[in-house]
Amino acid sequence: MRMVDLILKKRAGEAHTQAELTYIIDAYVKGDIPDYQMSAWMMAVCFQGMTEAETAWLTGQMTYSGDTVKLDDLPGVKVDKHSTGGVGDTTTLVIAPLVAACGGTVAKMSGRGLGHTGGTLDKLEAVPGVCIEQPIDRFKEIVKRIGLCVIGQTGNLVPADKKMYALRDVTGTVQSIPLIASSIMSKKLASGADAIVLDVKFGTGAFMQTPEDAEHLAKTMVTIGNHLQRRTMAVITDMNQPLGMAVGNGLEVREAIDVLSGRVPNTDPLYKVCMILGACMLQITGIAKEEKEAEAKLTQALQSGAGLKKLEQMLTALGAVDAPGVIADPEQLCRVQKRIPVALGKAGYIGDMRASAIGNAAQLLGAGRATKADVIDPAVGIVLHKRRGDRIQADEPFATFYVNDESRLEDAEKILRGAVQVADAPVAQAPIVYKIVRE
Amino acid sequence: MRMVDLILKKRAGEAHTQAELTYIIDAYVKGDIPDYQMSAWMMAVCFQGMTEAETAWLTGQMTYSGDTVKLDDLPGVKVDKHSTGGVGDTTTLVIAPLVAACGGTVAKMSGRGLGHTGGTLDKLEAVPGVCIEQPIDRFKEIVKRIGLCVIGQTGNLVPADKKMYALRDVTGTVQSIPLIASSIMSKKLASGADAIVLDVKFGTGAFMQTPEDAEHLAKTMVTIGNHLQRRTMAVITDMNQPLGMAVGNGLEVREAIDVLSGRVPNTDPLYKVCMILGACMLQITGIAKEEKEAEAKLTQALQSGAGLKKLEQMLTALGAVDAPGVIADPEQLCRVQKRIPVALGKAGYIGDMRASAIGNAAQLLGAGRATKADVIDPAVGIVLHKRRGDRIQADEPFATFYVNDESRLEDAEKILRGAVQVADAPVAQAPIVYKIVRE
Repeated sequence: MRMVDLILKKRAGEAHTQAELTYIIDAYVKGDIPDYQMSAWMMAVCFQGMTEAETAWLTGQMTYSGDTVKLDDLPGVKVDKHSTGGVGDTTTLVIAPLVAACGGTVAKMSGRGLGHTGGTLDKLEAVPGVCIEQPIDRFKEIVKRIGLCVIGQTGNLVPADKKMYALRDVTGTVQSIPLIASSIMSKKLASGADAIVLDVKFGTGAFMQTPEDAEHLAKTMVTIGNHLQRRTMAVITDMNQPLGMAVGNGLEVREAIDVLSGRVPNTDPLYKVCMILGACMLQITGIAKEEKEAEAKLTQALQSGAGLKKLEQMLTALGAVDAPGVIADPEQLCRVQKRIPVALGKAGYIGDMRASAIGNAAQLLGAGRATKADVIDPAVGIVLHKRRGDRIQADEPFATFYVNDESRLEDAEKILRGAVQVADAPVAQAPIVYKIVRE
Repeated sequence: MRMVDLILKKRAGEAHTQAELTYIIDAYVKGDIPDYQMSAWMMAVCFQGMTEAETAWLTGQMTYSGDTVKLDDLPGVKVDKHSTGGVGDTTTLVIAPLVAACGGTVAKMSGRGLGHTGGTLDKLEAVPGVCIEQPIDRFKEIVKRIGLCVIGQTGNLVPADKKMYALRDVTGTVQSIPLIASSIMSKKLASGADAIVLDVKFGTGAFMQTPEDAEHLAKTMVTIGNHLQRRTMAVITDMNQPLGMAVGNGLEVREAIDVLSGRVPNTDPLYKVCMILGACMLQITGIAKEEKEAEAKLTQALQSGAGLKKLEQMLTALGAVDAPGVIADPEQLCRVQKRIPVALGKAGYIGDMRASAIGNAAQLLGAGRATKADVIDPAVGIVLHKRRGDRIQADEPFATFYVNDESRLEDAEKILRGAVQVADAPVAQAPIVYKIVRE
């Protein structure tokens, strides 16, 4: 097989065979196919797409390009949850404990934040003492004992994706449904879960701009999962404003604890998305038969404090110095030198927000990374006081900045103000969950 | 400027500015843009194309990426002729002498053959003693003295094209009108001619399959020439059969001498194409005002033997041991161990021929190169006896193979037979010249 012929085939819009995709991934990881051929092929994929079968074969080959995690010796159906990345999205820290409290088994490898998006690992590390790097045996022991654990990626998982993603990043080939879907799913599959619930976001803070694109990506990933014998579901959710009110690591842990403590109303978007994702996880694992039953179990786990207890147990297991203290008083995660209210200077109704810009503003305050080498301040960030559709006065605080380093404060304020539309007339509310995609 | 942003811009179908194309070519030649970004960008160009202005800017920047030849100190309008490559195309060896005999100045740098296509340099070297590597001053001295010279490329001309073409060859990005046009035209422009006549071929032996594609390429190249202040014309010609009857280096020189000696009828496709290209060269240089006048001058140069004399002078200038002897008896260029007649085994009318396959059959006999390192046997090749439309008997020779090495004879016969359609009913003749594209 010659790579140039395979590039020409994809350029002509033809579908690859499984053997061809096996060759491409194997030879690329080994270094037998050079970057310049891979990037030309991926650009052709961007224009010509891939069939369902091609995308599944590609994902399968990527999955087994390196180490894989075996969770077979853990009891029950192991369920994972993945979000395509957003702003103020702390669902994992709410759902994983709730699902575990309902009898589920959540063994999850998570990622760090980059650019405007946050990452669960950075949030966990906002809790003093927590170490997200754990040996695989310790990880499995924790899951077995308390029903959940979230750690960083371990071992040499999916080297094909690492190499391909680095190349896509510099060759304009990131935006491609089959390449995005295979990148996400290969990592989920290599992490060993039996069942996967995906949160595919659309809007100003997401990879996908429209609900239609998000649905296309969701369907592609669910199809991949089914092709590769994993139960997979996807929930398509709105990211045209930050999901929660908090954007920043300690602030988001505090918000997760607030949800699990019953201090957040059930009309809140973060609360709603947690409930729907959690319900999918209970259904896909067979713990609940249908949505109503699942929601009742989750509500019970929340109201009884069982979910909060699971979070505390996990934090302790990961090395937290005083998990009960943090759970009782999460305020301690957000101690900063200054809390600065920020008004928009304009009265009216809050319209669309560019969620990515709000993520960027938080990053300027020190809550995120511009490059992988940047160091995060876990206490700083932004707390919003208004949602889309809310009424606001010109001098009324739209948000509070939690600040230790004021050097880029003005830029952050400017970005925040530029990110929020204020309309004269009332703004229609969009539903937070657009659609559920089942197998 | 970041290359990834320029790739994304082209991927989105937007047009580059002149500054952006200047950056891309300069940085690529310097090594500041890696191959993997260049190949992704070129693949995006394959899908999204380029505007006329973009293609001209790209060509201009490529032209000046290395040395350029200055012909300003030679008298008159220097005219070049370029063919997009075909089979049995020995027009240069006929036209350059005829145009010089009519008072034109032809200073031409030519290329070698690869794959199924022949190259003028290989044909010249079939004449004992001829050396196509000449210092630029010697080249110009010959042109000044006798009005024509054809040599190999000298100096570091258009390194951008060398680097880009090598990459396109292995990344499936050869087929792209703006990339093909800028590659051809940058080399022509760097060679210093004031006026350029292009022979753009279509059909089974050409790069472009249809006359429409050939016209698109021709128009693109003429527009580039006009943008960059060179008089440019293009003739679109049929390559659905070899242009001449001979395919092989010595055989094609013999055929060129036959044409210049008046031994080939004026109904012959090779004769016709030579006349039309020569007429364009005389018109574009102002030596003739219109086609009729140009053809009369060319016919006079041919019938008087003045053209043949120019060819003899050039061969002598390039070092031929006995140019007058070769001109008088070109048979000596084709002395082989065996001449083997090949019949098709089927009676009827000759239909379409895959000219590229006939070129490949000649290559198997030793007349061409599969890779750049292969050595050519100048005497071997194929002489056809029939044209499209001719009637043939089952056992009547369609061609004669000129053979020294019989090791791949059977393969060559098989390829030849597979390359020619024999129809039961008479076959309509297609005109050899499809269209002329003027400025």
